[in-house]
Amino acid sequence: MNILAVDTAGKTASVAILRDDVLLYETQCNNGLTHSETLLPMIDTALRTCGMTVADLDLLGATNGPGSFTGLRIGLSVIKGLALPRQIPCAPVSTMAALAYGMAGQGTVIGAQDARRGQVYWAAFDLASHARLTPDAAEPAAALAEFVQNCKKPLFFVGDGAALCYNIYGQVQGVAPCPAALQVLRGAGVALAAKALWESGDCVPPAALLPDYHRLSQAERERAEREKQQGEQTNAI
Amino acid sequence: MNILAVDTAGKTASVAILRDDVLLYETQCNNGLTHSETLLPMIDTALRTCGMTVADLDLLGATNGPGSFTGLRIGLSVIKGLALPRQIPCAPVSTMAALAYGMAGQGTVIGAQDARRGQVYWAAFDLASHARLTPDAAEPAAALAEFVQNCKKPLFFVGDGAALCYNIYGQVQGVAPCPAALQVLRGAGVALAAKALWESGDCVPPAALLPDYHRLSQAERERAEREKQQGEQTNAI
Repeated sequence: MNILAVDTAGKTASVAILRDDVLLYETQCNNGLTHSETLLPMIDTALRTCGMTVADLDLLGATNGPGSFTGLRIGLSVIKGLALPRQIPCAPVSTMAALAYGMAGQGTVIGAQDARRGQVYWAAFDLASHARLTPDAAEPAAALAEFVQNCKKPLFFVGDGAALCYNIYGQVQGVAPCPAALQVLRGAGVALAAKALWESGDCVPPAALLPDYHRLSQAERERAEREKQQGEQTNAI
Repeated sequence: MNILAVDTAGKTASVAILRDDVLLYETQCNNGLTHSETLLPMIDTALRTCGMTVADLDLLGATNGPGSFTGLRIGLSVIKGLALPRQIPCAPVSTMAALAYGMAGQGTVIGAQDARRGQVYWAAFDLASHARLTPDAAEPAAALAEFVQNCKKPLFFVGDGAALCYNIYGQVQGVAPCPAALQVLRGAGVALAAKALWESGDCVPPAALLPDYHRLSQAERERAEREKQQGEQTNAI
């Protein structure tokens, strides 16, 4: 089974090709360009390097959230576009699960991506089994305190919000360091998480591959605030 | 500081660009082609994607052994060629150290690459500090038994010889699994190991970047055996 997996949920982009248990190709990229510029050339390079075309793919995986609204839409649009003509099944991979599956070890791993506004998208997983311990959430980093205190140790943070979490929890007993360069969301992690979704029967047809934003977009938040203020002004008249 | 790091010591090839603590780019590739076909395009893609040229690089790192004789010569030749005109310092990275630096965690990690003839190239490192515990060696996988029994647990195997080691030691108390896709030698690991060599003052000028094969090549072994047999025949006359 050939799986192509991509991530564009955060600052970095990644692409991987997994054949059964063998990682044929993997790239992580943090070049500061928008994912709309980097993703398709990365996929093209990956397929060419492996001597493959889209016709060789049995499953397409993409992180579908939480993460950057624009980033998620770029990754999902590309994957849906590649999958649609041949109706290749798609794996909607949680960004947090992709982070966890990219790491081997024992203890607990928290996937944490920068959600701006002082928040992180986060979820915790058992590191050995990659079993999920908490649902994906968008919260201030301070809200993780109770989980961090009580979870199985050692505890590692990965993702582009990991530095923020280490700043707050780095000194807690049992919290173990992870070099910044190894905190990056790996294409291999997306591919392994996609494979797990396939095995549990949780993949979908291309048309049903949808983002899961986990909170309102900036435009929607601002409209809601505007409408709330207008309502208050109307009530005050 | 911009570091370009490559590995061609085993079956896979990898390239990474590390800027200070930030992993700008990383690729691992296992497409079955020879490194002489894949490595230069991989380096070219990495530099272009990051908007860089060789002039932007402050340090070049390459795995210099143990590993495949042809593979090592391809990687080292390319890196020496890129480094020579500008006399860019070079980091001679142990293949085993590159494997260890590519993994975060706690416990012990053994980097193990397939050395054919029933042997593995191997060395052990503390997983948290990446401090070396044993020297690089080429031995039958069965020779690791004493170390595996007595080392700090959990113990993980990575590298293209990891599957062989898990087959033998997978049931030993405290030996922990690592998914096959995460056993691959990472470009990020070569780059982090190169950075550590820079910090400890162990980098060299391009001309002094040399392979460390750790055992005789097949041609040398066969000649030695031939000469030994001829010697015995001469003695028998």
